[in-house]
Amino acid sequence: MSDVNGERLLADLQALSAIGGLADGGVDRLAWSDADLAGRRWFAKRMQEAGLEARLDAALNVFGHVPGTTGPYLLTGSHLDSVPNGGRLDGAYGAVAALEVLRTLVESKNPIAPLVEVVGFSDEEGVRFASGLIGSLALTGELDTAKLGEAHDWRGVPIDQVLAAAGREVDRLVDAHQHLASIAGFLELHIEQGPRMEAAGIDLALVTGIVGVHRQRIQLIGEQNHAGTTPFRLRHDAGRAAARATAGLYELVQSIDGDAVANVGFMQLEPGGVNVIPGRATFTLEVRHLDEATVRRIVAAFAERLQEICAEEGCRIESELLSWVPPAPMDPTQVEILQQACRQLDREPARLWSGAGHDAAVLSRHVPTGMLFVPSLGGVSHSPREATSDAHLVLGARALLRAVERSAARIK
Amino acid sequence: MSDVNGERLLADLQALSAIGGLADGGVDRLAWSDADLAGRRWFAKRMQEAGLEARLDAALNVFGHVPGTTGPYLLTGSHLDSVPNGGRLDGAYGAVAALEVLRTLVESKNPIAPLVEVVGFSDEEGVRFASGLIGSLALTGELDTAKLGEAHDWRGVPIDQVLAAAGREVDRLVDAHQHLASIAGFLELHIEQGPRMEAAGIDLALVTGIVGVHRQRIQLIGEQNHAGTTPFRLRHDAGRAAARATAGLYELVQSIDGDAVANVGFMQLEPGGVNVIPGRATFTLEVRHLDEATVRRIVAAFAERLQEICAEEGCRIESELLSWVPPAPMDPTQVEILQQACRQLDREPARLWSGAGHDAAVLSRHVPTGMLFVPSLGGVSHSPREATSDAHLVLGARALLRAVERSAARIK
Repeated sequence: MSDVNGERLLADLQALSAIGGLADGGVDRLAWSDADLAGRRWFAKRMQEAGLEARLDAALNVFGHVPGTTGPYLLTGSHLDSVPNGGRLDGAYGAVAALEVLRTLVESKNPIAPLVEVVGFSDEEGVRFASGLIGSLALTGELDTAKLGEAHDWRGVPIDQVLAAAGREVDRLVDAHQHLASIAGFLELHIEQGPRMEAAGIDLALVTGIVGVHRQRIQLIGEQNHAGTTPFRLRHDAGRAAARATAGLYELVQSIDGDAVANVGFMQLEPGGVNVIPGRATFTLEVRHLDEATVRRIVAAFAERLQEICAEEGCRIESELLSWVPPAPMDPTQVEILQQACRQLDREPARLWSGAGHDAAVLSRHVPTGMLFVPSLGGVSHSPREATSDAHLVLGARALLRAVERSAARIK
Repeated sequence: MSDVNGERLLADLQALSAIGGLADGGVDRLAWSDADLAGRRWFAKRMQEAGLEARLDAALNVFGHVPGTTGPYLLTGSHLDSVPNGGRLDGAYGAVAALEVLRTLVESKNPIAPLVEVVGFSDEEGVRFASGLIGSLALTGELDTAKLGEAHDWRGVPIDQVLAAAGREVDRLVDAHQHLASIAGFLELHIEQGPRMEAAGIDLALVTGIVGVHRQRIQLIGEQNHAGTTPFRLRHDAGRAAARATAGLYELVQSIDGDAVANVGFMQLEPGGVNVIPGRATFTLEVRHLDEATVRRIVAAFAERLQEICAEEGCRIESELLSWVPPAPMDPTQVEILQQACRQLDREPARLWSGAGHDAAVLSRHVPTGMLFVPSLGGVSHSPREATSDAHLVLGARALLRAVERSAARIK
């Protein structure tokens, strides 16, 4: 059989990484930013060069399939957006590999090709708009694109304004909405973004499920005051309250469950003057675990501890749920198909839970979904130092090709 | 004798507070901002309306004296800049009261008037440029205005560019530099900015000295990584290290000296994404005490604790001294003169150390300097809720008038 063109795959990855590329090798393609839109244009153009029909939906997800087909399709791909100063593989790898897979099927005139669609999702990361996964949520109808205006980015700009402006910027290739009904299944190839596979010497891993992700924004309101004249005992220092609460986060999480993780990625003190006691502290809390009840217990324990600290410091708490993505088990049949594909390549894949959220988590609630991992060097991701060996990048795409063939063949 | 016009004083304070005034009653006149420059224009204009000659120096300090005089002068005044979202009295009160005092002396044809100069200093607060006190440092020659370009604001703009642009913005009234040789002494009237006077029912307080102020910017460099896939034990979380170090600051300071104060007013995590482990945390540390050795001990103890924490978290420390203003005792003769002035008004003043830095601290190293406080309601300052009763505001100006007369009379 024809196999994927490894050199072409690596060259495409290189070309995409230059869009929004930073001097240190990192990538900055924040959802719907100029660089992200340029990446989407590039992806659509590469599809057209491969003889595919490229189209956009209201969330600016990019799709590509054999011209004249209408599905149902086996969808494969990942997201094109990145975190700020992120790596070149997170998302991009799965989207570019999917293109390479369909391109290979088309070139070899494989009768399966018309049953396959490639996708480059929008805003998986959720950095600009807190929820993330907006592209896949829009595709599956979980998020009504007509109501997108209710979401605002960190600067207060409504998302529908961003999309309207971006839609004018990207040439709208087809003014049609993508419908979930045309999707029969979903396969996503992704880097692990963690250290487990490399540590165990594993080349390919089947994802059996994806953790639930809770995201929350917390504001502590104390009393802004002069830092030179206000004795400690009379202060209501919102920054101190935030530091006390977040300093103990890891210990609190581990006392509840050793597999759970949590993060405080954003922290701001206001007004921010070196000589002003902070009157307000704003930070984000993220908690992840495979089991929803465990996430709830951690969130509740943190809230309780925060309340104790704020009572002591004389601060008030305002808390806002940014998003909740429930844990998502993968479809056993797709997992089985991925396993067979790996074995075709003489690899015995490991089975792993994913600690990162993925578009596959959203799709899994609607269509049979599977996910395949390749190792991350040093386990590093969301960083310019994110990397995977070329051999593993090509191996993953070869496995995806075989899984796509098997899975698409099941579509009636 | 003629006394100050209390209604005019309060009206002037009201007019100045409208410049850079916020809806919540606060004031935003960050050094050399558009609002600060408008405040300086207003102050110079009010001087001219009082028949005074107004002039600016290279730091855009505003001076006013009887036309045709060249000093030496008894200088009196305070600063016109504010912290972001600050109060309407911090600095502005002392400058406006000084104008009211000289205006009263001129109107009553007091022979002392030609010996008095009023000042509205620049950048006392040090929010935009970290050191602060740039106006008084420039006046006293401690800071070479020709070398101002070496200082940069938080956004990296060199201070000389800011001043050059601001100098074009403010009509330059006299292109002459103010020389320290023309200053024979300095008296500064200010709000206490703390709760001690109100709590003790004291109307006026003599400042016997001003605390030393140490300011430092600290950056912790960890490893930016994916928050969902990196186990706690493999993280180098710069935000966690910063939280751990700053959460215990009050306890560390108090274990060394019960009178010392410290503050963390600024904190930033980078890159700042909700799902990214912070690779960098930047925060400011401020420490104040009357005794330099105590400040040094606290700074060293914090550095030691920070090093322990960063060794545990696998983070690296970069630290930069932003400024050090040594403790400043006031001149006993000026303190005595201020005491006599208070007694003329049938008030027995208290004696207090100032926990806040002031222009008087810089001037005290060069000329006999004294400082007078009026109470702050609730001890609140650097806040829109900063307030002093009208009765105390007028009383302070009346005491300043009497002290200025006594002190200027001593100039040969």
